[in-house]
Amino acid sequence: MTDDALFRDLSARMAATAFYEWSGMELERAAPGEADVTIEAGPHHLNVQGLVHGGLISALADTAMGLAVRTKLEPGRRHVTAQLDVHFIAPAPRGRVIAKGRAIRVGSQIAVAEADVVDTRGRLLARASSTLVVSADRR
Amino acid sequence: MTDDALFRDLSARMAATAFYEWSGMELERAAPGEADVTIEAGPHHLNVQGLVHGGLISALADTAMGLAVRTKLEPGRRHVTAQLDVHFIAPAPRGRVIAKGRAIRVGSQIAVAEADVVDTRGRLLARASSTLVVSADRR
Amino acid sequence: MTDDALFRDLSARMAATAFYEWSGMELERAAPGEADVTIEAGPHHLNVQGLVHGGLISALADTAMGLAVRTKLEPGRRHVTAQLDVHFIAPAPRGRVIAKGRAIRVGSQIAVAEADVVDTRGRLLARASSTLVVSADRR
Amino acid sequence: MTDDALFRDLSARMAATAFYEWSGMELERAAPGEADVTIEAGPHHLNVQGLVHGGLISALADTAMGLAVRTKLEPGRRHVTAQLDVHFIAPAPRGRVIAKGRAIRVGSQIAVAEADVVDTRGRLLARASSTLVVSADRR
Repeated sequence: MTDDALFRDLSARMAATAFYEWSGMELERAAPGEADVTIEAGPHHLNVQGLVHGGLISALADTAMGLAVRTKLEPGRRHVTAQLDVHFIAPAPRGRVIAKGRAIRVGSQIAVAEADVVDTRGRLLARASSTLVVSADRR
Repeated sequence: MTDDALFRDLSARMAATAFYEWSGMELERAAPGEADVTIEAGPHHLNVQGLVHGGLISALADTAMGLAVRTKLEPGRRHVTAQLDVHFIAPAPRGRVIAKGRAIRVGSQIAVAEADVVDTRGRLLARASSTLVVSADRR
Repeated sequence: MTDDALFRDLSARMAATAFYEWSGMELERAAPGEADVTIEAGPHHLNVQGLVHGGLISALADTAMGLAVRTKLEPGRRHVTAQLDVHFIAPAPRGRVIAKGRAIRVGSQIAVAEADVVDTRGRLLARASSTLVVSADRR
Repeated sequence: MTDDALFRDLSARMAATAFYEWSGMELERAAPGEADVTIEAGPHHLNVQGLVHGGLISALADTAMGLAVRTKLEPGRRHVTAQLDVHFIAPAPRGRVIAKGRAIRVGSQIAVAEADVVDTRGRLLARASSTLVVSADRR
């Protein structure tokens, strides 16, 4: 698939998922093995210290990593996050946050992905990695 | 502090954080070194497969672990999650989800916490752990 | 299998692996879903601070978790660690260290395990978890 | 410090640690924020499947990450690994294995590091990350 076709495919998946509209996540870019997802962090996304809640950053990174792996899967295959880890590197004030997901390895049974979470200046806010299970779609 | 005093203290912190009202998280129980946080997972919390989004489960677990550590800190001390990892064990359909956080070790500089995420029957949905930095409150 | 049969099965696997004799790891106990592995930490296992090297504790925990999962697998199935995480809780001086592994979930494709690493008084030195891939043995 | 001075400093630390001579780990390269550590994996480093034991790869990565952080610390400061996670990407047959550690962030209280573990052709065998506690040396 071209990057445009990947972008349309991932966008359609996100549009079919109420969680993304509710939380404010949007696809920004797609390429083979890569997906960038952004959120405009508003007051309702902040923790008690006025910084973007780490749980939201984790959700954003998880989404970008899942979609990055998705770009490498054949139709009829399904991915589920089995394990997620996140290092919070710098505090994220409100504003635009981008999770840049990339597939490190996509096998027949398991995949590994990573994400950089950055602000609009490219400052590193968090680094995440995940293990995903890949299987035949049971639906 | 008594469990009641801890519950009031943690509730006040949650009430001061727009993220919790927006996302629907509520404190259910507090005790020294322990905090249970729940969410009633509705349609907007689900992923494309109709299951509670892993990012939301991560955010819930992170919150319960942070509050569990909070119960062991003196006033004037501050905790920030430095690192979070989550194993997703079983799919979580919509409905009530509870993250049971507990502090494993709280030192002067660093803390370690864990959480079980369960449904109302006690079925294990996820296991999480985190590393937190503890420091003097700079505000 | 009885616990005795599990113990013999796991012991035979360890005896077939030069790494365990070289590193000094020994099986102490086996039960369905559980395996305890010990090491007598000597001078060559210590880091520059005179404490048991974290890498060795990680290897011990990985071994106990893998064997714990092994007890739940049919013959002809194979397990490989895909991902490992370890929280170091307390410094471990030389002497006996025990990793108590337990299988949290063993599926047809993936397994999750945890381990407590303790000293002979039961003091918690580390907590570990892992994700394992389960598949048909290709040998 | 120059890279040569860093190399001598880290080599002296490794020479003072019996674990490294016993396990066969050697420093290969040092630069500000970076340290590469190698091991020649022999029969005693292999698991039951004839591949380098994941525990050894974890220990190698932990060592490279700790030394990478060390290059950024002032004399009189001390680092201890608080948390380690490793994704095993490809099986490692016997032969030379290199862990390339780099410091992602070194603060006054905490540091984050990552490592690529590769073979001599640069093939990625594992990716690791760690959280380290930084403090005044109490010795």
